Amino acid sequence: MEESVQFSGFDLMEPFAKDCNTRVVLDHVMSKWGVLVLMRLSAGTLRWGELRRAVDGISEKMLASTLRTLADDGLVSRESFPTVPPHVEYSLTPLGMDLMRRMLPLVEWIGAHADSIVDGSA
Amino acid sequence: MEESVQFSGFDLMEPFAKDCNTRVVLDHVMSKWGVLVLMRLSAGTLRWGELRRAVDGISEKMLASTLRTLADDGLVSRESFPTVPPHVEYSLTPLGMDLMRRMLPLVEWIGAHADSIVDGSA
Repeated sequence: MEESVQFSGFDLMEPFAKDCNTRVVLDHVMSKWGVLVLMRLSAGTLRWGELRRAVDGISEKMLASTLRTLADDGLVSRESFPTVPPHVEYSLTPLGMDLMRRMLPLVEWIGAHADSIVDGSA
Repeated sequence: MEESVQFSGFDLMEPFAKDCNTRVVLDHVMSKWGVLVLMRLSAGTLRWGELRRAVDGISEKMLASTLRTLADDGLVSRESFPTVPPHVEYSLTPLGMDLMRRMLPLVEWIGAHADSIVDGSA
């Protein structure tokens, strides 16, 4: 029998119950599009069109809804400039950067292991 | 303007493109039910019924499909004992434990920040 992974002073059997705020945030942050948008913004501020191209395959509607959710959560900020046509920029807030410092090791692990996982050699 | 988060030698703009294996694994691992099942198994081996109760709110069908995906990915192992009624146990594989070592800091961060994010004080 394998040893279980050690948690650092955090009981994971208690939170993350149905109807907990943890589930709500988990849903926002650990979703495919949420992760991809946050990853792209980790590299720096992007305009709407740049973000749309950087998150290959996302629809306009899904990008709008993902950005709205992440902005409501205080993870992404939106700055709009009164130009013609309007120019809107998105970036991570300090809270969003703090989150990404925890998420990037995981994303890097997925990047390193995805091929062997998918081809069955893992 | 905020500084961007630093990545450790990994170009995040290249992988995670549409149709890449990274997207497939991201979808399996960073989904609400995938994360919740992996978290529960991080604490140790569980039988089907224990897992079903531990992942509050998951349907039998979703649990079966999540476990099948994670087992196919080599992250979860399934051991069945020839008893009556049959007794089946699930645990993380060494690869799954390696993944969870990267995921737990993120999950702990969500646990610590979820309330302030959801109530808007973040």
